[in-house]
Amino acid sequence: MHRTHTCGELSLSNLNQEVVLSGWVQKSRDLGGTTFIDVRDRYGLTQLVVNTDDAADLRTKVKDLGREFVIKVTGTVVERSNKNPKIPTGEIEIKVSDLEILNVAKLPPFMIEDETDGGDELRMKYRYLDLRRNPVRNNLILRHKMAQEIRKYLDAQGFLEVETPVLIKSTPEGARDFVVPSRMNPGEFYALPQSPQTFKQLLMVSGFDRYFQIVKCFRDEDLRADRQPEFTQIDCEMAFIEQEDILNMFEGLTRHMFKNVKGIEFEDFPRMHYADAMRLYGSDKPDIRFGMEFVELNDIVKGFGFPVFDNADFVVGINAKGAASYTRKQIDELTDFVKKPQIGATGLIYMRHNEDGTLKSSVDKFYNEEQLQKWSVAFKTEPGDLILILAGAKEKTRKQLNELRLEMGNRLGLRDKNKFAPLWVIDFPLLEWDEETGRYHAMHHPFTSPKPEDIAMLDTNPGEVRANAYDLVINGTEIGGGSIRIHDKKLQSLMFKHLGFSPEEAQKQFGFLLEAFEYGAPPHGGIAFGFDRLVSILAGLDSIRDVIAFPKNNSGRDVMIDSPSTIDDKQKKELSIETTV
Amino acid sequence: MHRTHTCGELSLSNLNQEVVLSGWVQKSRDLGGTTFIDVRDRYGLTQLVVNTDDAADLRTKVKDLGREFVIKVTGTVVERSNKNPKIPTGEIEIKVSDLEILNVAKLPPFMIEDETDGGDELRMKYRYLDLRRNPVRNNLILRHKMAQEIRKYLDAQGFLEVETPVLIKSTPEGARDFVVPSRMNPGEFYALPQSPQTFKQLLMVSGFDRYFQIVKCFRDEDLRADRQPEFTQIDCEMAFIEQEDILNMFEGLTRHMFKNVKGIEFEDFPRMHYADAMRLYGSDKPDIRFGMEFVELNDIVKGFGFPVFDNADFVVGINAKGAASYTRKQIDELTDFVKKPQIGATGLIYMRHNEDGTLKSSVDKFYNEEQLQKWSVAFKTEPGDLILILAGAKEKTRKQLNELRLEMGNRLGLRDKNKFAPLWVIDFPLLEWDEETGRYHAMHHPFTSPKPEDIAMLDTNPGEVRANAYDLVINGTEIGGGSIRIHDKKLQSLMFKHLGFSPEEAQKQFGFLLEAFEYGAPPHGGIAFGFDRLVSILAGLDSIRDVIAFPKNNSGRDVMIDSPSTIDDKQKKELSIETTV
Repeated sequence: MHRTHTCGELSLSNLNQEVVLSGWVQKSRDLGGTTFIDVRDRYGLTQLVVNTDDAADLRTKVKDLGREFVIKVTGTVVERSNKNPKIPTGEIEIKVSDLEILNVAKLPPFMIEDETDGGDELRMKYRYLDLRRNPVRNNLILRHKMAQEIRKYLDAQGFLEVETPVLIKSTPEGARDFVVPSRMNPGEFYALPQSPQTFKQLLMVSGFDRYFQIVKCFRDEDLRADRQPEFTQIDCEMAFIEQEDILNMFEGLTRHMFKNVKGIEFEDFPRMHYADAMRLYGSDKPDIRFGMEFVELNDIVKGFGFPVFDNADFVVGINAKGAASYTRKQIDELTDFVKKPQIGATGLIYMRHNEDGTLKSSVDKFYNEEQLQKWSVAFKTEPGDLILILAGAKEKTRKQLNELRLEMGNRLGLRDKNKFAPLWVIDFPLLEWDEETGRYHAMHHPFTSPKPEDIAMLDTNPGEVRANAYDLVINGTEIGGGSIRIHDKKLQSLMFKHLGFSPEEAQKQFGFLLEAFEYGAPPHGGIAFGFDRLVSILAGLDSIRDVIAFPKNNSGRDVMIDSPSTIDDKQKKELSIETTV
Repeated sequence: MHRTHTCGELSLSNLNQEVVLSGWVQKSRDLGGTTFIDVRDRYGLTQLVVNTDDAADLRTKVKDLGREFVIKVTGTVVERSNKNPKIPTGEIEIKVSDLEILNVAKLPPFMIEDETDGGDELRMKYRYLDLRRNPVRNNLILRHKMAQEIRKYLDAQGFLEVETPVLIKSTPEGARDFVVPSRMNPGEFYALPQSPQTFKQLLMVSGFDRYFQIVKCFRDEDLRADRQPEFTQIDCEMAFIEQEDILNMFEGLTRHMFKNVKGIEFEDFPRMHYADAMRLYGSDKPDIRFGMEFVELNDIVKGFGFPVFDNADFVVGINAKGAASYTRKQIDELTDFVKKPQIGATGLIYMRHNEDGTLKSSVDKFYNEEQLQKWSVAFKTEPGDLILILAGAKEKTRKQLNELRLEMGNRLGLRDKNKFAPLWVIDFPLLEWDEETGRYHAMHHPFTSPKPEDIAMLDTNPGEVRANAYDLVINGTEIGGGSIRIHDKKLQSLMFKHLGFSPEEAQKQFGFLLEAFEYGAPPHGGIAFGFDRLVSILAGLDSIRDVIAFPKNNSGRDVMIDSPSTIDDKQKKELSIETTV
């Protein structure tokens, strides 16, 4: 037997018991005739005390012990004289009678501590050592718990988890597919799913009516911005429902999860129209942990001879409450921030509402006290507030101000990681114009249903057509998105046409779905949550990488197993492929 | 609102309630002024009654209804005069006040009934219609329930579900990998995992100590014999344990599942040494729902001038109890059966123990009554029994007799699908000789630990070395297998050497694992269950295909979505590959 208890459970209630523990040596301190060893496992840390004067063989073994050696000890639980209130086992220690070294360990390349000295690359190469660290392991424990709670809720609601295939069919639409050459079908390829979208819709046609799956999906994209080539989705679909049913069901899921995993309960989630989200926050995923809503200024700033405002399509600002005390240097930093190429503003106008009640702007040359009073009214400023204003083309300027708003939220401490602000954004546009290809693309995907009352506009004003589509946003991050789907073959064909598919292309790629719609497809809709992102939000992390056991780096490499790698020519020949490099 | 109730839940307790139901038209019978419609959903079937004399618009709609139309009806629950005790809703019907056709349906290419007229190919092409049939849907509901129960049990036992990567590294050892060209790393490939074996071992090195995952695995094999290129595994690993701990834990899982899903409770699972399984059943996965154990006959049949026995290495038989009445024709069928090329015996010898007590063999010319009495004693025959005997090389003959035993089990009705006989087979050999490559291969995989007391034989007598490896067998099917793993770098290197790896090859393919073993690897072991197979056993099915929502055919094709398929040249160019066909 390797252990009677874990290293995290012994307490004074176990006094005088003979126990066996196994684990890793966290550290060892030789105080002459007595050695103290901290032994660690997944459950905690327990202090061992070895009287090395007693037994020669114990003395030798203890002398050899290094960090991360795997040991098994037998001993008696005794009370500690020097208690450690910080850990659950801090009131006891184990008086060791026998110690066995189960395995030796080389000195790890970085410290196995909560705060480590290992850099990212090193931690990734030795991920199995990084995973020994409490913060990383705790993320994965959180992930496990969340997955369990999600399944518990959905199972109780009558959802069936159905596994959809991983080897599917490549579709040129959307992001790039990973493909898999088929040996048995030379010259042909499977694709890995970017989502089980069409399969879950087929399950609705099959009458499964409540489907879910926690499932790996794949996207061969360039991996900037905290993306992974393989990621996990909570994928759900329901039939015989309307948008309201879906919002309620998955608001319920989110509540259940937060309550059971974090002990947090929510009021009803607020809902915001896409158009309002863009108008008030310049983003379809506003962080509503704080206000700082956009104020549009065209009506009160134009015509005073300030060319930047006069020539701009759109002038818009925010009130950074309490930031009037910002120094010149701090404001210059903000100006530099908005002028970064990623953001691309040409400049930043500001107005201070000083503590003494005076108003002072960076464009006093053009706007007198009376004008600035109007600004103050528009922004509802109080003494101590700072107004920040951008001008330019409407959409671009909104995006820029969104970035500035989030930056100010950070600077003013308004984005507390322990506070959670969920939000439904609804009524997304059906289509968005793509400059590069010069045509409309589906904002969500080609299966999203337009609002019935907007269908007539598809021909006349496609950009204005709204979809029965919705996103769940938490703390400014899109956690999930979904829509009511098209279940009518004619409407689906019309959509494909508007998305630039020829009838032949639509048939080749989605013929099976169009055909399925002819055999009695029910009204249906669904949602998918990004599970990695959701875990990272609950873990209070900025990156998804640390909620994934074995993530890949930005070049899509697993540096631990050194993959991808070359394969031998025999294998390529069997697959009827050659490499061109 | 699309429904207030499902089609499976209304009963007399709902009398006079106004309800809304949605579902598919199962059938419609027009009896003059009254039409009866059966409407179906996932939950059941409800009878609708429409008085078409009442309302002209209802009359028109009802007249148009075809099978599998999707409808929504509003109506009142009334008692049926002609009750149907076979279905839960059989005491009521819905007097329809309003009916809406949600979607029309073409006539399905086969009947959506429990017994369908659709052949395999047609059912696969229209799998979404096949999935509407109760037996197929019930398999997937069973699968869902089993997955939930498995997770519940393992979670309660402190196991953490950790997702391991799908894009991993190709290893030439073992079965063929599916590979994925990497766009960002031209000329290099990921592989899809045949199992998460090395990752779960790394998790043990990380201290996770109880890991599981229900996970898709992939094997690019020729798909004879009910195999799928993608299949699902219940993958588990534990640290600080011995074989006994694993057997107990997963016997517990199996009990829990059978109890909670099928209401079946088991005694302790019997255990059988591999060597005994081969000796008594000629198989490492004996079906112990019935006895019919092998009896070895060399000692009593040789030296009587019958050349077949005299020249054979090995003579062995079974007692097919109660089959003495088999006709000449039936016995000829059995002879043909064992002579089939897949089985390959040269002939079949038999002896009847007739009801009148006489013994009558097919080789009476060589064996007199006294000799046959010895056979009778060896097989413990009673009047009515039939002894069947094969002769030849030992291993081959055992395999042949195993097939004959299973065939006789079928013929005699001893393999009841509603009876379940689990069995642990333990002490597998570590290595098996491969004729084709002329060297030893790992019987389980290269990470399996030899029994410590047998390690010395690795050099002298490798075929005799036993492993700490075990299989769970139910009804003659291998459900799961596992082993205690090697956790010592030196022993692992030695194993690779015995498996014909050069040190360079071992380093290239498994260097990360060997290195991990140097940083404090704990003793560990695990098991993996074939989930598809397990579901099929509980569902009483012979094939795994009908427990998979969207299976592939024997050429690895999904005939519904028509995959695999060609990809365009641009995509190949981006991936730095060309096809050679």
